[in-house]
Formats: sequence, structure tokens, C-alpha cells
Amino acid sequence: MRHSGHDQAARLPQAAAELLAVLRTRGPRVHCITNSVAQAYTANMLLAAGAVPSMTLSAEEIGAFVARADALLVNIGTFDPERRAATGIAIAAATEHARPWVLDPVFIDRSAPRADFARDLIARSAPRVVRLNHAEFAALSGGEAAAEAAMAYARATGVVVALSGAADLVTDGTRLLTIHNGHPLMAKVTAMGCAGSALTAACLAREPDALVAAAAALVMLGVAGEIAAETSAGPGSFSTAIIDALFSLDAPTLIARSRISA
Amino acid sequence: MRHSGHDQAARLPQAAAELLAVLRTRGPRVHCITNSVAQAYTANMLLAAGAVPSMTLSAEEIGAFVARADALLVNIGTFDPERRAATGIAIAAATEHARPWVLDPVFIDRSAPRADFARDLIARSAPRVVRLNHAEFAALSGGEAAAEAAMAYARATGVVVALSGAADLVTDGTRLLTIHNGHPLMAKVTAMGCAGSALTAACLAREPDALVAAAAALVMLGVAGEIAAETSAGPGSFSTAIIDALFSLDAPTLIARSRISA
Amino acid sequence: MRHSGHDQAARLPQAAAELLAVLRTRGPRVHCITNSVAQAYTANMLLAAGAVPSMTLSAEEIGAFVARADALLVNIGTFDPERRAATGIAIAAATEHARPWVLDPVFIDRSAPRADFARDLIARSAPRVVRLNHAEFAALSGGEAAAEAAMAYARATGVVVALSGAADLVTDGTRLLTIHNGHPLMAKVTAMGCAGSALTAACLAREPDALVAAAAALVMLGVAGEIAAETSAGPGSFSTAIIDALFSLDAPTLIARSRISA
Repeated sequence: MRHSGHDQAARLPQAAAELLAVLRTRGPRVHCITNSVAQAYTANMLLAAGAVPSMTLSAEEIGAFVARADALLVNIGTFDPERRAATGIAIAAATEHARPWVLDPVFIDRSAPRADFARDLIARSAPRVVRLNHAEFAALSGGEAAAEAAMAYARATGVVVALSGAADLVTDGTRLLTIHNGHPLMAKVTAMGCAGSALTAACLAREPDALVAAAAALVMLGVAGEIAAETSAGPGSFSTAIIDALFSLDAPTLIARSRISA
Repeated sequence: MRHSGHDQAARLPQAAAELLAVLRTRGPRVHCITNSVAQAYTANMLLAAGAVPSMTLSAEEIGAFVARADALLVNIGTFDPERRAATGIAIAAATEHARPWVLDPVFIDRSAPRADFARDLIARSAPRVVRLNHAEFAALSGGEAAAEAAMAYARATGVVVALSGAADLVTDGTRLLTIHNGHPLMAKVTAMGCAGSALTAACLAREPDALVAAAAALVMLGVAGEIAAETSAGPGSFSTAIIDALFSLDAPTLIARSRISA
Repeated sequence: MRHSGHDQAARLPQAAAELLAVLRTRGPRVHCITNSVAQAYTANMLLAAGAVPSMTLSAEEIGAFVARADALLVNIGTFDPERRAATGIAIAAATEHARPWVLDPVFIDRSAPRADFARDLIARSAPRVVRLNHAEFAALSGGEAAAEAAMAYARATGVVVALSGAADLVTDGTRLLTIHNGHPLMAKVTAMGCAGSALTAACLAREPDALVAAAAALVMLGVAGEIAAETSAGPGSFSTAIIDALFSLDAPTLIARSRISA
């Protein structure tokens, strides 16, 4: 039986700590279709968490990679024909092999064809989680990016919504978690959101409750960001320090620093 | 009325400091067509300066991105058919919407078709600034890369030339500025020149005098490089420290450290 | 006359130190066909060692780049049609101009078409060195990744095998070197193996004995990794510290820290 939002908020820090331990011991494979800006940083973030990234986009072989992976990330930040073709094949393979997948609809607020593509992906082959920012959510749903709208969207689509902002909201339409961790420097490093989506995919590989997986990923990253900011001189040093912090994050620290409300 | 070179040199530090403040408060959007080697570093440098990067190359949507951006960078460091097609569409959109654009003709000294492509871009759809090194200038202009040649080229084309080297030269054909800031470690980090071109585009978004915009961008980056070198153990730590230094650069430091002559 | 394995092991540290000095003074050009995940890190590692990277993939111009380069790297980590076409042209140019080249058959254990492509490259246009990990060697050779199998494979193909693992093995079929340098954090940074292959190509540009070139590259990188680990808080800071360490590595330190056995 699922827990209420309040129970879930109270249990989440412990669940996140257990999930991070599982990532480190089990090393889930995460195949990433992501933009070329984000590829290296995403791979390094996954490695720091204990996961094993792969990133090929070739139509000939992406099916084989997804079949051998534990989860799939689809980030549409570079929306070229090659990646669109790869996306179709990869999602078909994920569906066939029952691999969970995460959609990151980057910059759909800037381009109508990209927004149409994202909406079509969600309608036809539901991802477990869509992770996005407020402008992207508004472009996706046509409405404002508030908690009620996110819950309504999640109910209508059956997809967990993970909405990044000053606080992160995660909802499956019934339960709503608000994550207060993170640091403003996270918005000054390119691909930080993409990395959060990739961590969500890694957590989904080992946690069947998509709400828990998404919230755990965001709290891990947010706590790592807070730790990194304490020793960083700016976004350059921060971008490497957050990888160190995620790599070194221990369960007591993660639990003590988690700030999650229902 | 424009100032003489000597006046311009004396005024540039203050102008650069004001422009950096504007970048931070106004956050100009810079769309970048750049090579995949440089994308992440360029994005992080723009974010550190206060600008907002986007990088899509898709023919379907690049026009919409450029229309919603404040400036465009065209870097031909990866000269593939996709980027060439994107370049044509992006420049047409920049022209239609009166967005300034910067050309970075990377490695045109290594490949004749690439040099032809760059010359054709300049002839047909004049960028506001071309930023390049001495070997690239020689390949572009067919001559030597001295101040006189750069001024003659700028006069003939109407394009501001920003020539990187031990000292940087910036000229619009009438005025000539020499920037003595910078550090040798800048040449040991890939995409540093590309990042300078992207900063030039960000400055052009808010400064109509292209000579001032290019010189301001190069002095910001050069001063940040000098500050970063003071605490770096090599090019790895330098590559992140220069981002920190640019992010933290304050007006008095920028003005005090600027070394610009006419 | 070639030296025996034991002589070679004893002489290798000195040879590696001399080769590193040559890279710094001569700056060999290394053209890299590599995956977009690895491009920036590979370029920065080559620059830190003194080499000059280029990375274009355009079919129109890659021949010209290879002809003007001193060595070629072919990394098949992103196995797309563009890179496959570029690979054919680049290898033809390398053969025509007698430029040595290195093959890095990334992830061929995950995809049968990719493994076929790698085997075909080796059979038709022998690289000087193939650098890979144990799973990739097993996929390539059909056997287990032990020293005997690597020697047999090198003898059968005429290609030097550089096999990365807890210890690195390098063999030309007759001689076998085991390199005990390195650090576990190297496996937590994406593109570290690719960077090792690129350094091998840089060394091959100046060292005709491919066994010595490959072993020298791996010992430089391994020693730099050990030095970097001493001051790193995790894989993020390690990824920049190893570049600093390679940049700053002096001959006495390299020689003193080398751990090579026959």
C-alpha cells in the first residue's frame, strides 16, 4: 500500500540513502540519449553515483544498448533527426524489455515543434517520469507551473512530474513531495538539470515507485550541491565539487541534510 | 561621434565593467552554433558571465531559437553538413531579426574548403565581429597577421577583427586597440578561444559598438585568466578557476587590471 | 635490435620521460575521431601533454587534417554513420601519408555490429595499437583477456595490444610489459580510457616502436593519476587534477614512480 504524502516525506531521506547504497553496489546501466552539451557531465555524474552510463545514438545498435541497460534517459536538448530516430528505437526497446525511462523536455518553451514532439512521446509511450523546469512545464501542459497543475497533469497522463525550481516538486497525481535542498549555483552550471534527470533514471532502475525514485535523485543532487557550495569559489569549482560530494555522500549526511515536505 | 583610439583605450576598462554588470542583470540569450568539443565549456563560460546559452542545431527549430535570442555565435570548428545547414538558417534569422552575430573561423588554416566557407559567410552576410588567431587570419586574408593587415581587412569588409595572440588586437579599420591581458595557460585549455567568441556575442547583444563589445569581452576573459592563474596548478584547475574568476569579477578589479593600449 | 621484455621494462621509465619531453617541445598534431562524450576531455589531456588536437569529422576535410597531423586516433564510442564514413577516409589518408593510428574499440562488448566494424578495421588497415579493456578484448578476440591471449592476438594481427585493467598489459606478441601505475578513480571519470588512447597516438607520432609508445603513454597517465589522487576529494576534482599532474610531470618523478614489469 502506498503511503500518504506526509508519511512519504518522512520516509524519503532513508529511502534515498538506501537507494544510493544500491546504486553503488549494483551499478545500474543507464543508457542516455542526451544533447552533446550535456553528455560528458551527465556521464561523470552517473559514475559518481555508482551507475554505468552509455550514450550511443546509432540507430543500428541503440536497441541492443537499451536492452542491456537497466534504465533509459531521453533528453531532447539537441533535437536533431539522428536523435529523434534513435529515440523511437530506444523507447520501443525499453517498452519491449520493460525498462523504465525518463523524459527531459529541454527548452520546449523555445520551439513549438520540440514541444509537439515531447507531448507526442508522453502520449504514445508514457515515460515513468518527466523532469523539467517551470517554463518547460508551462509549454508542455499549457498551464501554469503550480503544484495543483502538476498534480492534475500527473493524474491525466500517469507520469510522475518532477518540477525543478527554487524548491523541487515531485508528484504522481496523488502524492506530492516538495524538496527544499539545492543551491543557486546549480543553475549556473550547464547540464545540471540533465544530470538530475539521469540520476532519476539510475534510481528508477532499482526503485519501482517512480515518485520515490525521482525524489531520491533530486534530494541526493540537492544535498551534494549544498555541500559543494560550501567549498566552491564559483560555478567552475562548484561543477567539480558537486561530483565529489555526490561520490562521497554518506547515509547519515544525506539523511540529516534532507529537507522534504509533503 | 566615435572616439580616437587613444580615447577608446582609456575608456574601455570602464565600458567593460559596465557591460559585465549589464550581462549579469539582463542575462542576454546567446544562441551558439559551435563544435561539440566546445559546447559545454562555452555554455559554462556564458553562464558565468550572466548570459543564457542555447545550442540547438536542428534546421527545424534553429530559426525560432535565433529569433528569441539576443545574439548569435557561429563557430565552424566542426564543419559537418548539419552545422553548415544550420548556419545558413541561423544567419538568415539573425539578419531578419537584426541580431548581431560573431564568426569564429576555427582551423581554417588546415582546410581549404573550410576557409572558402568562412570567406563566403563574411562576403554574403557580414558578421559584426570575426574572432580568430594569427594562422586563421592569414588563411582568411591571404596576408600576414599584423595590425596593418587587420585594419585593412576590417576596412575592406566592414567587420571588426579580433585577433588573438600574445596580445589581442581589435580593430574596426579606423580604431585599433591592443589588449595585453591574458595568460599562457589559456592556450592549454580547449575551447578557450571559442569561449572568447561567445563572450563577444554576449557583449554585442548589449553594446552596439562592435569594437567596444569585442574588446570588452577579451579584456574580461584575459583578466579572469590572470586571476585564475594565480591559484592554478595547471590547465585542469585553471579551466575551472577562470570560470570562477569571471563569475566573481568585480568592476574595480576589472578596471585596475585592464591593460589596453591604442 | 629489440630488447627482451626484461630489458624493455627496465628501460621504459627513461624512454617515457624522454618521450614526454619530446611531446612538449615538438607538439605533435593528433587528429581524433572520437565520441562526443570524450572530445573535450581528450583535447585537454592532449594539450596538457604538449600535443595539439584536432577533431573534425567532416568527410570533405578530414583527409586534409590527417595529412597534416602526425598521428590519428579512431575511437568508435559513438558509432554513427558520419563517424564511420569519416573513419574510412581518415584511415586511407593515414595509410597514404604513413601516419600511425590507434584504435579504441569502445563498448564493442555491447553491440555485435560495432564489434564487427572493429574487427574489419583491424583486418583491413592494421592500426599500430589497439587500446581496450578486458570486456572489449574478449569481444574482439573471442577469448579471455589474459596475457597469453593478448600476446597470441598481437602475433596474429601484427597490432600492439594495450589492455587496460587493474594492471595494464602491453604486448606486441613477443614482448610483454605490465604497468602497475594508476588509481581506481581513473575508472570513475568518463573518457579516461579514450584519453589514454589519444596519448598513445601522441607518443606514436614520435616513437616508432609501438610497444614503447603505448607503454609510455599508459605509464605517464597512470603516474599522473596517482599524483592527482593524493590531492583529490573525489572524481570531480580528480578529473582536473590529473590534467594538472600530467602538465607538471617532470622526468625524475615519472621515472621514480614508474612501476613496470616484464
